[in-house]
Amino acid sequence: MHVAVLGATGAVGRTMLEVLGERRVHVDRITLLASERSAGTTLRFARREITVETPRPGVFEGVDVALFSAGADRSKEWAPRAADEGAVVIDNSSAYRMDPQVPLVVPEVNARDIADRPKGIIANPNCSTIQMVVALQAVRRAAGLKRVVCTTYQSVSGAGETGRETLRRELEGEGLKAVKLGSPIEGSPFTRRIAGNVLPQIGDFDEEGWTGEERKMMNETRKILGMRDLPVAATCVRVPVEVGHSVQVTVETEKDLTVESLRRALVVFPGILMAGGPQHFPTPYEIAGRNEVFVGRVRGDPDVPRTFHLWIVADNLRKGAATNAVQILERLGGG
Amino acid sequence: MHVAVLGATGAVGRTMLEVLGERRVHVDRITLLASERSAGTTLRFARREITVETPRPGVFEGVDVALFSAGADRSKEWAPRAADEGAVVIDNSSAYRMDPQVPLVVPEVNARDIADRPKGIIANPNCSTIQMVVALQAVRRAAGLKRVVCTTYQSVSGAGETGRETLRRELEGEGLKAVKLGSPIEGSPFTRRIAGNVLPQIGDFDEEGWTGEERKMMNETRKILGMRDLPVAATCVRVPVEVGHSVQVTVETEKDLTVESLRRALVVFPGILMAGGPQHFPTPYEIAGRNEVFVGRVRGDPDVPRTFHLWIVADNLRKGAATNAVQILERLGGG
Repeated sequence: MHVAVLGATGAVGRTMLEVLGERRVHVDRITLLASERSAGTTLRFARREITVETPRPGVFEGVDVALFSAGADRSKEWAPRAADEGAVVIDNSSAYRMDPQVPLVVPEVNARDIADRPKGIIANPNCSTIQMVVALQAVRRAAGLKRVVCTTYQSVSGAGETGRETLRRELEGEGLKAVKLGSPIEGSPFTRRIAGNVLPQIGDFDEEGWTGEERKMMNETRKILGMRDLPVAATCVRVPVEVGHSVQVTVETEKDLTVESLRRALVVFPGILMAGGPQHFPTPYEIAGRNEVFVGRVRGDPDVPRTFHLWIVADNLRKGAATNAVQILERLGGG
Repeated sequence: MHVAVLGATGAVGRTMLEVLGERRVHVDRITLLASERSAGTTLRFARREITVETPRPGVFEGVDVALFSAGADRSKEWAPRAADEGAVVIDNSSAYRMDPQVPLVVPEVNARDIADRPKGIIANPNCSTIQMVVALQAVRRAAGLKRVVCTTYQSVSGAGETGRETLRRELEGEGLKAVKLGSPIEGSPFTRRIAGNVLPQIGDFDEEGWTGEERKMMNETRKILGMRDLPVAATCVRVPVEVGHSVQVTVETEKDLTVESLRRALVVFPGILMAGGPQHFPTPYEIAGRNEVFVGRVRGDPDVPRTFHLWIVADNLRKGAATNAVQILERLGGG
């Protein structure tokens, strides 16, 4: 199999190479692509040093699968060309996620949607959405889904390497001094200081006051689950964590279910690792680098029937991005 | 007025002295009390150096109001004695909060409950609860309350000076190095590393999997609002922020209400500062040191009627503790 990676030098692109190697995906040839700024650098894959090139017409000829993680603009520019040149594109950007002709796939949930890809493009969902829908699918299998309310704790690596650098620089430069100023440092991708702070803003606001990230979670969850009318409300918050997103979900089921049955449904669901017992819980610092979705703190609402509260943690660069994309690639077989 | 402060050297006790001074409360005499470990140290109040003493029988004689913030055990030991000796006790610990003979007061919400205090004790609520109920009361006045679901982002100063020191030491000692170990440093009040992490555990777990802090938010909210049957579900999470708690609340109202009417109801409510417009929001780093409750990100649920999402931030040492206690003291008048 000939694989291309567009955005190979970014946080997700590098993780894609790691995951391809770790999972022993049979790759005969790899083409690494990035912007002009990164072209010429070399990256290690399968014990070889590969030189990064800029994408150009014809570069996707002979490529079986192209993994894209270079932002929505790059995807809009290159995904149709790559598909024309014969590659199946697995796109990590938001460019095609809500396109009705592009499947939006989390293999544990809707792997069968991969087959119907008229544009030759498959979209990889938003990071927080991926980890949440894996857990929601387990809930749905056990008792159906009626409503979802979620609140996130998203790490700075969701804003790429610049997000991580910003947190480090803010911590080093000013520590946690009680400066009464919430401005971010120069070059920060965040609108306020992130060190020692939490920011209820990821993406731009729309007229109703929801952010881009919140709309993604709401819309993508419905599309992946194939539940067009499912009420989903999200509040997305950036926290000073390097890697790993946490999501608190309140979910209402269609049918009655005991907490014990729900825990069992989660334990046996593929891709989920359950913290043992109601007293244990995953934290992002501890699960960074892992490929699974970690679930804990499963509680039944004391007052409202058929309502449960869950804590869901995953590595946003892995299951939230690279691992999910590579899982889609694996389902394609030989392309 | 003769005021005593028990726990004067702690994070909340020191803030109580600051707030008493800033608000120009007329204090003729002040008695500062703390454990033996801190006795003998001096603290500045009203331009004088006051020596801290250990509490002993008779120390509360002649005291009009005693502000307690030395933990539940100290309160159980000394609050009844202080009341016997004639002082009105305003207790910041959890010891008496759910006692039916002790009013639990947030002045903006239930100031009139102060009058009925058969034990001579008034309880100051849990920090996250205080800031949430101020906003909930504004919602209730506008359209009634039917259900509350909340998720918190609580700063380390909620665990006292030790919490702040722990975060600083973890940041200094190890930075944010990707050590695959979530253990806290020695002496930490947290069960996992807090630097670069978030912990969905504040307090101990009960059999249903809820933590002490979560039960406090659920039970205290009902008591302060005087709504015994209000469904309240809380998930409480510690975040690596020094000062300032944030609470995401999803609230269902009894009556129909537009988002604009809700925003107006919040803007005019005493003690609330509203971020201007749907695109603005408060963050803990920016509002640390302030006495108000800051509300932003008010949104109407796109799918579920009479349901709203709010972001509420306050300084947990001030409105969440010291300021609220001093406001109660002010309402007592001359005691």
